[in-house]
Amino acid sequence: MAVNLQEPSELLPVAGVRLAAVPAGIRYQGRDDLLVMALAEGSEVAAVFTRNAFCAAPVTLARQHLAQIAPRYLLINAGNANAGTGEAGLQAARESCALLAEQAGCQVEAVLPFSTGVIGQALPVKPFAQALPQAVQQLQEDQWLAAAKAIMTTDTVPKAKSCQVTLSGGTVTLTGIAKGSGMIHPNMATMLAYVATDAQIEQAALQALLQEVADETFNCITVDGDTSTNDALVLAATGASGIAITSLQDMAAFRAALQELCLYLAQAIVRDGEGATKFVSICVEEASSPLEARQVAQTVALSPLVKTALFASDPNWGRILAAVGRSPIADLDVGKVTIYLGQTLLIDHGEPAVSYTEEQGAAEMQQDELAIYIHLDRGEAASTVWTCDLSYDYVKINAEYRS
Amino acid sequence: MAVNLQEPSELLPVAGVRLAAVPAGIRYQGRDDLLVMALAEGSEVAAVFTRNAFCAAPVTLARQHLAQIAPRYLLINAGNANAGTGEAGLQAARESCALLAEQAGCQVEAVLPFSTGVIGQALPVKPFAQALPQAVQQLQEDQWLAAAKAIMTTDTVPKAKSCQVTLSGGTVTLTGIAKGSGMIHPNMATMLAYVATDAQIEQAALQALLQEVADETFNCITVDGDTSTNDALVLAATGASGIAITSLQDMAAFRAALQELCLYLAQAIVRDGEGATKFVSICVEEASSPLEARQVAQTVALSPLVKTALFASDPNWGRILAAVGRSPIADLDVGKVTIYLGQTLLIDHGEPAVSYTEEQGAAEMQQDELAIYIHLDRGEAASTVWTCDLSYDYVKINAEYRS
Repeated sequence: MAVNLQEPSELLPVAGVRLAAVPAGIRYQGRDDLLVMALAEGSEVAAVFTRNAFCAAPVTLARQHLAQIAPRYLLINAGNANAGTGEAGLQAARESCALLAEQAGCQVEAVLPFSTGVIGQALPVKPFAQALPQAVQQLQEDQWLAAAKAIMTTDTVPKAKSCQVTLSGGTVTLTGIAKGSGMIHPNMATMLAYVATDAQIEQAALQALLQEVADETFNCITVDGDTSTNDALVLAATGASGIAITSLQDMAAFRAALQELCLYLAQAIVRDGEGATKFVSICVEEASSPLEARQVAQTVALSPLVKTALFASDPNWGRILAAVGRSPIADLDVGKVTIYLGQTLLIDHGEPAVSYTEEQGAAEMQQDELAIYIHLDRGEAASTVWTCDLSYDYVKINAEYRS
Repeated sequence: MAVNLQEPSELLPVAGVRLAAVPAGIRYQGRDDLLVMALAEGSEVAAVFTRNAFCAAPVTLARQHLAQIAPRYLLINAGNANAGTGEAGLQAARESCALLAEQAGCQVEAVLPFSTGVIGQALPVKPFAQALPQAVQQLQEDQWLAAAKAIMTTDTVPKAKSCQVTLSGGTVTLTGIAKGSGMIHPNMATMLAYVATDAQIEQAALQALLQEVADETFNCITVDGDTSTNDALVLAATGASGIAITSLQDMAAFRAALQELCLYLAQAIVRDGEGATKFVSICVEEASSPLEARQVAQTVALSPLVKTALFASDPNWGRILAAVGRSPIADLDVGKVTIYLGQTLLIDHGEPAVSYTEEQGAAEMQQDELAIYIHLDRGEAASTVWTCDLSYDYVKINAEYRS
């Protein structure tokens, strides 16, 4: 089950955002699997998408629509990714947008489509036709928790968070939801995440902000190294609070709040990683560049041998060292590398730490949240990647589930 | 258990090579765990080693010794990798070489040390002192099978093969052994492999040949993406047959035989991959360069989602497509990509194949040996990577075993 992740409580409505979650029976029965988010007129929207070349049809279409007019509706289904579906998949995505546009009375290009679930199966349009009239009628501001639940696939806990930040002109609200558990190795963004605020921010600034924050949060997590075909992260600023963000000081305060919220959601995905029993931070310091730090951290985070040792709570630090050693760093001097498991020194400038005892290592490993610190002594840059262990249940879930 | 891999039979002695496998109790009890290989005077030796920056002490020392004089003895222990052991590990490796040199009456630099097993534990030298006198006494030409067994760790089947090739001057013999099952993602070479021939080849040609063949065989397999700290592949040419390889034609014939033997050993490691139930070839064709082809093949071969689908015999081809899509190819046009599972067309120039049926896919997946063909339509280059599936037993083995 998820590592120290509770169901969200006290989610704050965001003025200008209404939501409706309904059961459409696209794959799942007896639960909501279709979400509509309506944005007030004048909302600005920023988005980042997967870099997977085989991106899903809704990703392609959402990019096209975003380039044309300001979005008014987000249409999200769980259970079918509409990926690897070729031209027919694009057509199904277009039709689902047209059905919502018709019900909502907006242009089809004002609808952004998103899908998550099985890859390579045709997306049926009929469930959209049947469920959308009800969804449009039910749109309300207080449906964030229901929305977080409606987009789940192998997730075991809904992921959502709210916060408020006080700016020079008053207090604005941010609320975000995310889903994702497997096929998690974001490259630009992760499995579906939606964040909204009632602050007023112009689109170019919003997009730049989102890209920066995605890089520090969603792009720093990994469960299994598999970048999804459907990753999308959307940030909507409705401006409904009447509070515009224009000063550098306000932008910094807003950015900090957004970064914290996205980090919570990104880490929630790792905590609920498929089969996860441990939440692990891989912190690389003293690298010559942030990219280098990230590459070393990801190599350790993705090592199946490190991940199975974490699952077994086995302080088998040789596997950490082996993973650092095979990182894509051309001229790594292992004589400069220092590694800690939590507070316990493992490797001191390339040499096994004299102070290390198996009891210390075992005690660190017993914790369900732990950090591995790797000092390269090559520069000033640092990066942290968050990941989970590799357990029997990861294999079980992915041998049995069609994602 | 291993996929279609039987214990080797009819191993041929190689004139000029004597072997002795003895129980030293380094980690295992009641089995041989120490191997000595003696090479006749005048033998030429080529070797390739891991590119892991945290390479083991014996790798560092073997490189040093190779650069000094022609090797006469290989000293190989299983059960302790002597990696991550710092200066003390180097000292232990030196002492073990000195003990053998003393017994054998050769220079210490004529001994090449190799270790495999747990990383990060001090290598005791006492077992070498106790076992080496017996080993040196027992050296014989017909001990190749015992040698293959003595170097096993999590291997379930010993890996060895012999062949003969007729050259202009007569027939020469090649026999090789290998071990490896987990931490398999060779980068220059793999977990320990030793090949010997009685042909006579000069050292520079031997080294060039070995590097080429390693690149086509051992460097094309992966079990879990974890490049070992101890990888080493050694080729010894004793020249005891009196048959020198000097003509281009003889070199081509010898190269073909060596390539086939190394490919057998490399594939044997995958067939005996930890927890493997399937042997899978990932064949990428029409790439713009061999490197590009290899990168796409490795991305698919390493995808945990592809590997768990293979374990489940689930024709979940969306995961193959997603892995191709996240390969590190900057400008991949998915509209040109064609993918087959065995004989079954899955993706035809980016579109799902109209002819595909779930029954066909399921039938392909049921086989314990299968191939995935990926055509990129970008050029003439091709590469094949061999891998296995990811099963419960991989997690079990690596959660329980300290490698």
